Amino acid sequence: MKPNFSLRLRVFNLNCWGIPYLSKHLADRMKRLGDFLNVESFDLALLEEVWSEQDFQYLRQKLLPTYPAAHYFRSGIIGSGLCVFSKHPIQELTQHVYTLNGYPYMLQHGDWFCGKAVGLLVLHLSGLVLNAYVTHLHAEYNRQKDIYLAHRVAQAWELAHFIQHTSKKADVVLLCGDLNLHPKDLGCRLLKEWTGLRDAYLETRDFKGSEEGCTMVPGNCYVNQQELEPFPCGIRIDYVLFKAVSGFYISCKTLKTTTGHDPHSGAPLSDHEALMATLCVRHSPPQHNPTSSHGPAERSPLVSVLKEAWAELDLGVAQARWWTSFAGYMIGLGLFLLAVLCALTAGGGVREVAILLGTPSVGLVLGAGAGYLFHMQEAKGLCRARAELQHVLGRVREAQNMGPESQPALLLEQQEGNRGEDQ
Amino acid sequence: MKPNFSLRLRVFNLNCWGIPYLSKHLADRMKRLGDFLNVESFDLALLEEVWSEQDFQYLRQKLLPTYPAAHYFRSGIIGSGLCVFSKHPIQELTQHVYTLNGYPYMLQHGDWFCGKAVGLLVLHLSGLVLNAYVTHLHAEYNRQKDIYLAHRVAQAWELAHFIQHTSKKADVVLLCGDLNLHPKDLGCRLLKEWTGLRDAYLETRDFKGSEEGCTMVPGNCYVNQQELEPFPCGIRIDYVLFKAVSGFYISCKTLKTTTGHDPHSGAPLSDHEALMATLCVRHSPPQHNPTSSHGPAERSPLVSVLKEAWAELDLGVAQARWWTSFAGYMIGLGLFLLAVLCALTAGGGVREVAILLGTPSVGLVLGAGAGYLFHMQEAKGLCRARAELQHVLGRVREAQNMGPESQPALLLEQQEGNRGEDQ
Repeated sequence: MKPNFSLRLRVFNLNCWGIPYLSKHLADRMKRLGDFLNVESFDLALLEEVWSEQDFQYLRQKLLPTYPAAHYFRSGIIGSGLCVFSKHPIQELTQHVYTLNGYPYMLQHGDWFCGKAVGLLVLHLSGLVLNAYVTHLHAEYNRQKDIYLAHRVAQAWELAHFIQHTSKKADVVLLCGDLNLHPKDLGCRLLKEWTGLRDAYLETRDFKGSEEGCTMVPGNCYVNQQELEPFPCGIRIDYVLFKAVSGFYISCKTLKTTTGHDPHSGAPLSDHEALMATLCVRHSPPQHNPTSSHGPAERSPLVSVLKEAWAELDLGVAQARWWTSFAGYMIGLGLFLLAVLCALTAGGGVREVAILLGTPSVGLVLGAGAGYLFHMQEAKGLCRARAELQHVLGRVREAQNMGPESQPALLLEQQEGNRGEDQ
Repeated sequence: MKPNFSLRLRVFNLNCWGIPYLSKHLADRMKRLGDFLNVESFDLALLEEVWSEQDFQYLRQKLLPTYPAAHYFRSGIIGSGLCVFSKHPIQELTQHVYTLNGYPYMLQHGDWFCGKAVGLLVLHLSGLVLNAYVTHLHAEYNRQKDIYLAHRVAQAWELAHFIQHTSKKADVVLLCGDLNLHPKDLGCRLLKEWTGLRDAYLETRDFKGSEEGCTMVPGNCYVNQQELEPFPCGIRIDYVLFKAVSGFYISCKTLKTTTGHDPHSGAPLSDHEALMATLCVRHSPPQHNPTSSHGPAERSPLVSVLKEAWAELDLGVAQARWWTSFAGYMIGLGLFLLAVLCALTAGGGVREVAILLGTPSVGLVLGAGAGYLFHMQEAKGLCRARAELQHVLGRVREAQNMGPESQPALLLEQQEGNRGEDQ
């Protein structure tokens, strides 16, 4: 590659709010989104909440001349809702479905039924290897009493881990998506600290769009105004994050968001705002790469966020185990009731009562049995993430015990391996 | 690294048959396994079917002086059964749980309840990066009419894909485990063709052990003799596979298997035979690396196995969709019965009959509903693997269309990227 190599990358991200029959004006919004993407001709368009494969196929047909490559990430029962459209050929693609994603009995939320995932596509652009990730994490329904916090932290950890393990030969890493995390939330800090990804909104000098870069704003007519009441400007939960490895330098030239309106016609494209970033990748000697300038002191925010995440997952494990035990007791209760009813029926005289009470007892045993299995699996998933965090913390401590002389070497090794190889 | 660099790696693999309360002489076998591993002092011991975490903890304590690093891969409801013991520090670890793993209602087989997975550990040995994978695929219960074939092919594809995406910076890749695949089975060919992994049994010049390298032999007293009737020598379903990237050369110096007996005391360690391989890694100029000597003609076995796998997954998708429709009709039938019963009850006179028939109808609706959701998710999972295969086939065809001049360059790129980057 030439020393004066430079690459401009225009990226689009939007949570499309594409629930068939439920989301308002879906067909019209999809049409306008397609028109907009065709006019703007981005390098990459990464979309979330395209729940219906028909909508993806519609966009695919519409965008074919401008974006010859496309992929829909299938997972779970409903799907991941993730899809991508690319002007450049997709060299490789894969996906990772998150182990934990809410509770099947929380039908009103329904996240469990979607296979929330992270999709990866590898592009080769002028000899540069770009790993682009698109994701959508579990929604936050109640910020004060968030029963999904441990699941979202585990998802953020799995996402970070997946990026670390799959991007070792990438020159540039890009992550777009709806993280359902505010910028200072634990999951967001964990993701950024562990991967070294930088936030386009915080990095760019040329930002145009909604106040404080919010991606759900009260000005959007599709937004539930009640939910945004505690946040007068809105919330920032959709992101464009990026990093380059040693030898490359990446910066965000411009970042735009929509502001509750379609940039052309006025009506919004979704209940979320779209993000449009122009990134610039240049060749640079390693010392010009900001990720290489971290010293040993940089390690402490990582350790602190790892510890915080560990504690949150530990709480989650305890909670999951409590629910497993509770379900176990309910199975016992159901079996006891059934035994009593059998005895009564054998004694004669209360047949109708036995039939009436027998059904709920069988239901209790089956329901509690399913709950027992589900929460056992939840506890296993949280234990797994906690063990992985524990291992990383152990590696960091080992590096610290080796003393300050060996720390820079270890840190360098860590950064060369995309900031995660040796921890 | 010095040009005369050479590394000897001693690896142990065993499917431990560790089902608590059901597997015979489990405690005694675990004790003997621990003693054996301590005496032999391998670099890495990779175990499958250690279903109980207590057994892992027992081995961990016993092996601590010889194998200071250990990890248990937690997943699913029962667990993955996978664990590792290493003489060298584990730098990084992660795991991938297979999307498809049998059917929850096949209680007699039970694979669905285990979170069958692949575990990865990254070791740094004398400056060399070793990615070691351990896995256990879905069992084969009926070779003539294998209802799990599509799932096993999807698992083999996910395994190969996971290895490709996570081993891009590895110098040496090692895969051990119980694949539940005979050497010429589709899944095994797919895995080997797509990853470029080589089979220790076929590569070594110094093999000692069971006839034809079988890992389930009739001479083992724990083996179900009926199942092995069609195979007088036994079957080979456990493997040590390996490869090195350009610049390194790896060979299998020796491979041993147990032969139905504990190598020391006589009684077997498990119903499977253990594999013990001594691998040798050397520095070598790229031209000495056998994986770099493939020409364009090498591509055709890959294309043919990809097509075969695509066809198998396509059949699986059709089957899953058939079951989804069937479950849909059953839901309809259950709802119809409930409506009829409601009407009869409203009409009066048949209350007891309504109560008696109401319960099975509700059961039918709920059961068929669960089946509908499950098979929908199964179809999505199979579609995902099929789409990934389709993408790879498309990339291969594109490369072929570019003509023979550009093929060697593309192939070189592919091999440098661990034989999978550019397809």
